Amino acid sequence: MNKVYMDNASGAPVDERVVEAMHPYFNSRVGNPASLHESGAEARKALEDARGSVAALIGVDSKEIIFTSGGTESNNIAIRGAVQRKKKKGNHIIISAVEHMSVINTCKDLQREGFEVTTIPVDRDGLVDPGRIADEITDRTILISCMYANGEIGTVQPVPDIGGLARAKDILFHVDAVAAAGKIPIDVRKDHIDLLTFASNDLYGPKGVGALYIRSGVALRPVMTGGGQERGLRSGSENIPGIVGMGTACRLAKEEMEQDTRHMEMLRDALIEGVLGNMKHAYLTGHRTQRLPHIATFRFSFIEGESIIMSLSDLGVEASTGSACSVKTLEPSHVLIAIGLRHEEAHGSLLLSLNKWNTQAEVDHVLKSLPPVVERLRALSPLYQGD
Amino acid sequence: MNKVYMDNASGAPVDERVVEAMHPYFNSRVGNPASLHESGAEARKALEDARGSVAALIGVDSKEIIFTSGGTESNNIAIRGAVQRKKKKGNHIIISAVEHMSVINTCKDLQREGFEVTTIPVDRDGLVDPGRIADEITDRTILISCMYANGEIGTVQPVPDIGGLARAKDILFHVDAVAAAGKIPIDVRKDHIDLLTFASNDLYGPKGVGALYIRSGVALRPVMTGGGQERGLRSGSENIPGIVGMGTACRLAKEEMEQDTRHMEMLRDALIEGVLGNMKHAYLTGHRTQRLPHIATFRFSFIEGESIIMSLSDLGVEASTGSACSVKTLEPSHVLIAIGLRHEEAHGSLLLSLNKWNTQAEVDHVLKSLPPVVERLRALSPLYQGD
Repeated sequence: MNKVYMDNASGAPVDERVVEAMHPYFNSRVGNPASLHESGAEARKALEDARGSVAALIGVDSKEIIFTSGGTESNNIAIRGAVQRKKKKGNHIIISAVEHMSVINTCKDLQREGFEVTTIPVDRDGLVDPGRIADEITDRTILISCMYANGEIGTVQPVPDIGGLARAKDILFHVDAVAAAGKIPIDVRKDHIDLLTFASNDLYGPKGVGALYIRSGVALRPVMTGGGQERGLRSGSENIPGIVGMGTACRLAKEEMEQDTRHMEMLRDALIEGVLGNMKHAYLTGHRTQRLPHIATFRFSFIEGESIIMSLSDLGVEASTGSACSVKTLEPSHVLIAIGLRHEEAHGSLLLSLNKWNTQAEVDHVLKSLPPVVERLRALSPLYQGD
Repeated sequence: MNKVYMDNASGAPVDERVVEAMHPYFNSRVGNPASLHESGAEARKALEDARGSVAALIGVDSKEIIFTSGGTESNNIAIRGAVQRKKKKGNHIIISAVEHMSVINTCKDLQREGFEVTTIPVDRDGLVDPGRIADEITDRTILISCMYANGEIGTVQPVPDIGGLARAKDILFHVDAVAAAGKIPIDVRKDHIDLLTFASNDLYGPKGVGALYIRSGVALRPVMTGGGQERGLRSGSENIPGIVGMGTACRLAKEEMEQDTRHMEMLRDALIEGVLGNMKHAYLTGHRTQRLPHIATFRFSFIEGESIIMSLSDLGVEASTGSACSVKTLEPSHVLIAIGLRHEEAHGSLLLSLNKWNTQAEVDHVLKSLPPVVERLRALSPLYQGD
């Protein structure tokens, strides 16, 4: 068997049809959308077609979409842009404890500028309780930011309830949907979402491209300044090949999401049942049912996730211990700590994130490879005393 | 003859060898550099190899290079990042009048935060006088930003002299080299440059990628926050295909720049001589000899640049009136105003920006197409009274 790649939350393959759609824009259609000649018009059309496809995925008007360089930039523009425009009204931001680092660290940065940030804890399944958010809202609250679903434990948040709360109090509601977009249907109108972040690579589009939905009427202050592209909110010559790629990926996601999701759910459940049914001291992290279709996450007592990953890699299985963004620090994931795991428990985590091309045979290979790896590591572990 | 594309300063073709180098990173090498498995290690190696190639182009250590999403972002990180770190020392910034909008508008934005900005005028050739900069330096000056060369009129600035001034006074020196990098040799050590911006597409690399040279020891505050990639200065999962593309483009530029430059200089001079020698009321803009090898720029009295561009486009020749970034505003280019043109003169500008694949036959076609276009437009112009 070839390498089994189940670390798609860290980096996913680009759909071959997306690569094909991008290709002409590398060296035969190279115009700048601002140029007055035919190639410029061609680039403008490609840009606006892509914007239309992105908008269609979440059922909004294409005027409500701007392109960015990825999820991190979209989150920065949404949060920094919103609070700078709203600071006359107040200085209070509410986020959940399981947000992406681009939300958490941006809010930390804003605290240094005088903004106040309340972090809402989650339960053992990783769920935010909208009641807790309601309790924290004050007259000074200007923004609530809560992700659609967590890519590290798979838990899907009660977004419509939080959105309802925010809208009733006239507070901006930002949702980081990087892990969820293209995997589960998102209806920003029904969910009362003002700002929605998504990223191309998580939809099998190219890396280095993202988008931000900005509900018509919501004003942001730009983070970067320059030539005024993307309605002044994201200056810099547009990355047309990347944008065409993201547009194509969104179109494919809209057409094929349902069947892809069913397929991945089946594999995910096979992974969960195979691990929990056959392995001792193995636990699911995240919510069992309110869960992304492509995320299977576990913790194993007495051993370290890093060792599991490296042993699996030797056997041709590639997975992760958590968000690729927190791996470097050697700190346990803030998400696993937030769901109440002790440090040593959080260190024993395994994140299997699927893509639409993964197969049952690959799942079988993982389920065969994993138990001997865990047994061997436990045999070496001073913490493990046998059963 | 096929379409003749001479608007490469707005958007350039990607070298086919660059596209080939990127290709495996779209769907077979998709790892995240932060991941612990083999694909992660592969991505780390690709990232660091590319960083090495970028560093080699300007003769610096690869630790002094960070990747960004393009020239605009590099300029924002350099300027915003530097002044936020230096604001205890002072609040005064010096820039030239012909900077890119990402420098000018970023400085305007900083003025609202209490920074003071002095804009140094240029002469009729577009040259900055280092003496004027010296006159404006105060104890509060923390940053000088001057581009290496202007992509709209081609003029190359006396960067080493400005760098010497800045270094002697312990003022940070930022250089926007988007138009110059890969076209003319740059030696950041000799030029006393602390921060250098360059963009991939201007080197025949992919759009949506750029780099910033940060001299060892220079501290910046990040503009965007998140997972802490690129030494904390540019968070967001790395765009590995794009970065591999930029690295390859820089390697090719280092190897082939000399011959490409010679070729483009020959074509540029043929354009300049052909236009000035054969057309009435036609003038060169920018400096005749201190000029980028790929930039030929003119102004024609009595007519509008927009009409020239559109008529040429009908004849299969694609060019520009100025920076693609200022086309949308319908305002005359700030660069042309800065060199002393009156509004009506600035409106009659033509920018021909070459790439390394342009040919003498294409130049001949342009030189044949342009005079009848200009004559016809003049015949329609109420300003033109005949010779």
